[in-house]
Amino acid sequence: MAVETFAGVLVPVLTPFTAEGEPDAERFVPFCRWLLDEGAAGLAIFGTTSEANSLSPAERMTLLERLLEAGIPAAKLMPGTGACAVTDAAELARHAARHGCGGVLMLPPFYYKGIPDDGLFAFVSRVIDKVGSAALKIYLYHIPPVAVVGYSLDLVGRLIKAYPETVVGLKDSSGDWNNTAALLDRYPGFAVFPGSEVFLLEGLRGGAAGTITATGNINTAAIARLYRNWRGTEADALQAEITGLRKVLQAYTVIPALKRVIAHFRRDPGWAAVRPPLVPLDEASSVSLLAELERVGFSLGQRRQAA
Amino acid sequence: MAVETFAGVLVPVLTPFTAEGEPDAERFVPFCRWLLDEGAAGLAIFGTTSEANSLSPAERMTLLERLLEAGIPAAKLMPGTGACAVTDAAELARHAARHGCGGVLMLPPFYYKGIPDDGLFAFVSRVIDKVGSAALKIYLYHIPPVAVVGYSLDLVGRLIKAYPETVVGLKDSSGDWNNTAALLDRYPGFAVFPGSEVFLLEGLRGGAAGTITATGNINTAAIARLYRNWRGTEADALQAEITGLRKVLQAYTVIPALKRVIAHFRRDPGWAAVRPPLVPLDEASSVSLLAELERVGFSLGQRRQAA
Repeated sequence: MAVETFAGVLVPVLTPFTAEGEPDAERFVPFCRWLLDEGAAGLAIFGTTSEANSLSPAERMTLLERLLEAGIPAAKLMPGTGACAVTDAAELARHAARHGCGGVLMLPPFYYKGIPDDGLFAFVSRVIDKVGSAALKIYLYHIPPVAVVGYSLDLVGRLIKAYPETVVGLKDSSGDWNNTAALLDRYPGFAVFPGSEVFLLEGLRGGAAGTITATGNINTAAIARLYRNWRGTEADALQAEITGLRKVLQAYTVIPALKRVIAHFRRDPGWAAVRPPLVPLDEASSVSLLAELERVGFSLGQRRQAA
Repeated sequence: MAVETFAGVLVPVLTPFTAEGEPDAERFVPFCRWLLDEGAAGLAIFGTTSEANSLSPAERMTLLERLLEAGIPAAKLMPGTGACAVTDAAELARHAARHGCGGVLMLPPFYYKGIPDDGLFAFVSRVIDKVGSAALKIYLYHIPPVAVVGYSLDLVGRLIKAYPETVVGLKDSSGDWNNTAALLDRYPGFAVFPGSEVFLLEGLRGGAAGTITATGNINTAAIARLYRNWRGTEADALQAEITGLRKVLQAYTVIPALKRVIAHFRRDPGWAAVRPPLVPLDEASSVSLLAELERVGFSLGQRRQAA
């Protein structure tokens, strides 16, 4: 039985905070709506870029509910379930499935290091059992540069085999194209999303489903344009353009840098707030980043263009 | 103003689970009582050895309340507040302070890596502000081999300076004696606990407050004996004895190994259960570990001896 999965450009949405440091639904909801308008195929809320692990499970569930109340379609949402405790991960996954979310993005438990695959398999398996719903669609979240713990190629295969209707995809933020290529090669039909648009064209040519990328918070339209036109003659030029912007961003601490860019273009300084342990971009870096963006002709919000 | 702090051997108590994988207060409460009987000066419940990050905050608070209901003195408890979200850490710290716990053991937020000291300082500071209680006594939990993120020597100094009545000690599980020695040297009066009894005698000679050690779950009495007699002629022999047992354990994955030892000596196989992502000790390792323990003459439960 074919399982419907996400495809295209998904955005791990930044989480704005109020001046008091609380998650700010008043900024979050319209920002999510704008990302969909810009061409995002889905919103991977509560990922690494979202500072999701800096939010309690209750804070995450409340924000999700605010999106649904505002009319954002649940089918467009892929909330992260990042947690070290199987009870927290299961609670978040159950909440998402119950509200009809298109999927969830599942970090492995990331406190203990050097965990054998059997332990990570048992964790995912326990979550699936606890949720006990055919509505649950899991995208594995492989990001060893941050989480340190990751999903090995073999473990991914074991999970697909055990739960073919539930474990349907993976975000590969390893930064290692060889790993993405191996996933595409070994698991055809599995929805693989490189975790950076730098690999988008190569990924699509190899059978990837799209990309889930931090830079999507400020450059959705251009990335989505490449997704729609990857078989066209302009594809390499479109890739070069979005890669160029990514390289500018990557020279800075990405999450505070993205927030600073949004604060600048929206003329809303409060958008730059991060929650500890992250720190805001310092003023010198902000000035230099904004100057570089001006140099490459970047401006926020390009709206989807007819391809 | 002098602040009263913990001193002696503290045990990061193992968390037993039921056959269904739920935290098992029926086994936990008498085990905690037994550890105090054996000579533990305090119980650092919800540490790494406790699989605390595999428990939701609610599960941890419930277990803590069960201990208090059973008459375990709050003053003997140093619950861990390990969490990546400042909201979760503050909730756990507030709960502990409100119930009169002698202190809390605070991991830094451990999801994001390469965080500047300013971000970690802001996290601890935010927790202290949110709790807003003079009853809160924080012991920093430095365990870079697992958490990857740690408290630098400078950051410890900044925290002591900013919160002299609140940030009162540190567990050093770096495994690096030089770091412990530097803490003892730079911050006299600050309660430093090496995270392994291997450093107990050297630590006490340098001004350490005691030790908080995983092996305390099975060897409290012997470690406490060294603590009481560290100025005596037998001190080096006592240190050699407890170091010997530690080395036996360290050849195995420590948490499942400790649980297997307790299951064996208590004739209670259920004690060996761990929560994913940890996996139980395999049978071959169990046999070899128990044989080695027999060879060194180990048996569980030695009761405190008059020194």
